[in-house]
Amino acid sequence: MTSRTDTMRLAYQGVPGAFSHRAGYLFAKTAKDVDSPEFLPCETFAAVFDQVLSGAANYGVVPLENSTIGSIVANYDLLWAHHVFIVGEVSMPIHHHLLGIEGTAVDDVREVFSHPAALEQCSKFFEAAGHLRAVAHFDTSGAAQHVSELKNPGYAAIAGEFAASEYGLAILKRNIEDYPYNRTRFGVITRPLSSESTAPYPRPPYKISCAVELPHKPGSLALLLTRIAGLDINLTKIESRPIPEAPWHYRFFIDMELDGQDQDDSVVKVLKDSTETYRLLGRYTPWKDLA
Amino acid sequence: MTSRTDTMRLAYQGVPGAFSHRAGYLFAKTAKDVDSPEFLPCETFAAVFDQVLSGAANYGVVPLENSTIGSIVANYDLLWAHHVFIVGEVSMPIHHHLLGIEGTAVDDVREVFSHPAALEQCSKFFEAAGHLRAVAHFDTSGAAQHVSELKNPGYAAIAGEFAASEYGLAILKRNIEDYPYNRTRFGVITRPLSSESTAPYPRPPYKISCAVELPHKPGSLALLLTRIAGLDINLTKIESRPIPEAPWHYRFFIDMELDGQDQDDSVVKVLKDSTETYRLLGRYTPWKDLA
Repeated sequence: MTSRTDTMRLAYQGVPGAFSHRAGYLFAKTAKDVDSPEFLPCETFAAVFDQVLSGAANYGVVPLENSTIGSIVANYDLLWAHHVFIVGEVSMPIHHHLLGIEGTAVDDVREVFSHPAALEQCSKFFEAAGHLRAVAHFDTSGAAQHVSELKNPGYAAIAGEFAASEYGLAILKRNIEDYPYNRTRFGVITRPLSSESTAPYPRPPYKISCAVELPHKPGSLALLLTRIAGLDINLTKIESRPIPEAPWHYRFFIDMELDGQDQDDSVVKVLKDSTETYRLLGRYTPWKDLA
Repeated sequence: MTSRTDTMRLAYQGVPGAFSHRAGYLFAKTAKDVDSPEFLPCETFAAVFDQVLSGAANYGVVPLENSTIGSIVANYDLLWAHHVFIVGEVSMPIHHHLLGIEGTAVDDVREVFSHPAALEQCSKFFEAAGHLRAVAHFDTSGAAQHVSELKNPGYAAIAGEFAASEYGLAILKRNIEDYPYNRTRFGVITRPLSSESTAPYPRPPYKISCAVELPHKPGSLALLLTRIAGLDINLTKIESRPIPEAPWHYRFFIDMELDGQDQDDSVVKVLKDSTETYRLLGRYTPWKDLA
């Protein structure tokens, strides 16, 4: 158990006001027996993993998947490469706003800075506006910070409400994302306990994430998925990533919902028996929006 | 049949010297009954699809997958959104070189321009060098063009041999990609014929690419893959992409190798019967390296 006096230190990629920062804040709110959390902004996703493994942070918050543009594959590859454990998830609505300095009209804006993923999630806004040049920036809140420093109505950023208040920017146009239902699912990572078996299981139903490499035989993926389906387990996501050392072969990242430890034992046995390599990435409580 | 006097016009993303340009050239060499091909450079992948659909180009060449970094998902989404047909593939080794103006030493270089995907494929080179700043550029050959214009030993580009000769740059360091086996698979797209059934089948064995949306029932992917495996068909790739209108649901892009029209008829029936939506994306001859 975490004692009341422990400080929760969460690492995330970006600058204050980033969506990952916000996701970390929401995760911390669910952990009631800790003091107010501290945050460690990191330049890259790899740095988040490093901060967690070094112990500088006891948690890391990384985006895994967006409902519009898909997986943030860099983080899947980092999950494979590092010995960390997913202990939580946060699913958060992502609303992108056009942010500028107070008094700016949308027609004044010439260049819009944001993370390439955010620019992509707002492609219809750019098509409709016509005159705007999209400029890639390393993250959404960093783009907001940059615009607040430029103090020029020709520049705007695409970022969230959290970043607007962090950098004192006005919201020039709200909700410019292509799809009104636009959410990102974040994983909360930590250093693994000394042994898999000593990690407490979350209260059922919970989610399990794993990565597998399959035997090089036709039908091996069909066989694995059929065995999982035979246990009445709902597979919520499957993502393939290349194995660079074995060209045109793939490893699969699989998320499943489990109703308890019996199903867990059965599926772990199936995973071990049907794969060449099996890695448990974590067990965690599915995110429910807080009231 | 294409007559000898037809001109082959291939659209690709990038500027002359791009890997896609080279892939188009290799594809054209396999089509012996046409005159020397013309090339249409495009700014974006979407523009390549537009040029093909408008008839300005009779072929488009787009990267689909790299053996190190995975799928170029933007092109999968464009394949879904546009009514085009894949009629060919090209698989090409991708060797990245550090290019600079003649007489530059690697130690002189401070900033390196390239496409983010190429920068990512050379991450170990940057780690080892330490002092280099990676700067994102819209494509590899465009970065080479930019460096040739800057004429400053502080700047270099990461691009292929083809781009070095196109822009008169020296190769400062060869093969800086992380994995020596680094290949990209390109798809060659064209406007579909008036009816699927009138398109000639390639000589067996050939590949088929399709996209499906599955019923929202647990086990539906397992069932589909089991039926495909039951036909002794080798599934060479499966890629999931989000359906933005149906959050946390996915469509799957599937590539298979077929031994002829009987297997083709059977698998198309399975695909139609087991899915909510089925789209044939193309039939084509698997790429064999030319001697």
